[in-house]
Amino acid sequence: MTRRTAPSPGAANGADSASAWRAGRKRLRDHSVKRDAVIRVAARAFNERGFHNTSLDDIAAALEVTKPTIYYYVPNKEKLLFECFLAGLDPIRAALRDVKSSPAPARERLNAVLRQYAQAVASEFGWCMVRAEHQDLSPSMSDQVRELKGEIDQGIRRLLRDGQRDGSIHSRDVKMTAFALAGALNWIAHWYRENQALTAPQIAEAFVSLFEEGLRPRADAPKPARRAPRQPRAAAV
Amino acid sequence: MTRRTAPSPGAANGADSASAWRAGRKRLRDHSVKRDAVIRVAARAFNERGFHNTSLDDIAAALEVTKPTIYYYVPNKEKLLFECFLAGLDPIRAALRDVKSSPAPARERLNAVLRQYAQAVASEFGWCMVRAEHQDLSPSMSDQVRELKGEIDQGIRRLLRDGQRDGSIHSRDVKMTAFALAGALNWIAHWYRENQALTAPQIAEAFVSLFEEGLRPRADAPKPARRAPRQPRAAAV
Repeated sequence: MTRRTAPSPGAANGADSASAWRAGRKRLRDHSVKRDAVIRVAARAFNERGFHNTSLDDIAAALEVTKPTIYYYVPNKEKLLFECFLAGLDPIRAALRDVKSSPAPARERLNAVLRQYAQAVASEFGWCMVRAEHQDLSPSMSDQVRELKGEIDQGIRRLLRDGQRDGSIHSRDVKMTAFALAGALNWIAHWYRENQALTAPQIAEAFVSLFEEGLRPRADAPKPARRAPRQPRAAAV
Repeated sequence: MTRRTAPSPGAANGADSASAWRAGRKRLRDHSVKRDAVIRVAARAFNERGFHNTSLDDIAAALEVTKPTIYYYVPNKEKLLFECFLAGLDPIRAALRDVKSSPAPARERLNAVLRQYAQAVASEFGWCMVRAEHQDLSPSMSDQVRELKGEIDQGIRRLLRDGQRDGSIHSRDVKMTAFALAGALNWIAHWYRENQALTAPQIAEAFVSLFEEGLRPRADAPKPARRAPRQPRAAAV
């Protein structure tokens, strides 16, 4: 078995700055890896027992570390919930960025985003994304979450409108369609459990093909697709 | 102004049993009307402040009565939450019963049920139906709620399958379609507020026409509708 070559933090010294740099990078990576583990374990605990019924002691016990070790990574339980929100929303935001420069028809771009959305809600972060309450966050954290959700909602509406224009999507009411899509996807957090027959990617595929059926333009459409009238903003997500 | 003729309870005597009977009926009706008012006010309070942040004192204050008066109608807060659940689910169950003997195509019958479902979620009982947690109910109440939700879920799937058979609905995967419909509708409780631009019936109409678009059979369907394979039970609602 080959040994990993990255030095332990203690091996770094002034005479070997490259090694010190690598050691520093490793420390940073270790910190980030461990912090991710804390967030993931917290997400699972909140999911199983709810936010109010989970203590930092429970999370420390699940990780087999002491509570002060947890404080090294996050200052409090509220911040932990906030990080779980972000961890859930991040891949959806990344998918929206990824498709921005894609030349594919809007329907395919939308499918890529919805697929990622479904997988995120079926992940351990789903509960935090969907079922955790804003009142458990500080006002500034709550505002940030609302803003990010608003971005995702607007991104989905933009793709729906793009699809109306390039003819790949049939949607008469973009706002209501976005609300219905987000609702169907968010609800996955209420019924899906990891130990179920279907995996998260299978759930995602099933939903995408369902929406695909509903949204694709039809030869027998009674009315042509048109742009929805301008409506006041309210986030669907 | 004409006076109502029903006698006050004190007016009833042995010599006038019809009058006593009417008085009894009025008492019962009064009791039921007042009990409904308690439940409705509780639903609004839970919706605004959450279940844990609402006390029976708050509900008594909103009704301008004393707490013992509340106890005359419901034994505790848990039972009140349970009654709110029932009040939300009842009109959907009634809609399912109503369409059972209807000769209309399954799509129309499904629309009638989904319309009622959307209106229920957009009512003051929406929060209790969707956002209240089962752990706030006793195990037996929780089981009853689960059973009623399961009935509604099965009713919707039955209508989807009827629609596959009579050709009025196109759905390749009845279970996932039921999950998506319930999710889209339940999510209304997360974003809809009574003071919004759209009324509950308008929201219901918008969703029904959206689903109608997605579910109606298409002349250009790539594959014919077929019965979904038998799958393990899990309630979508």
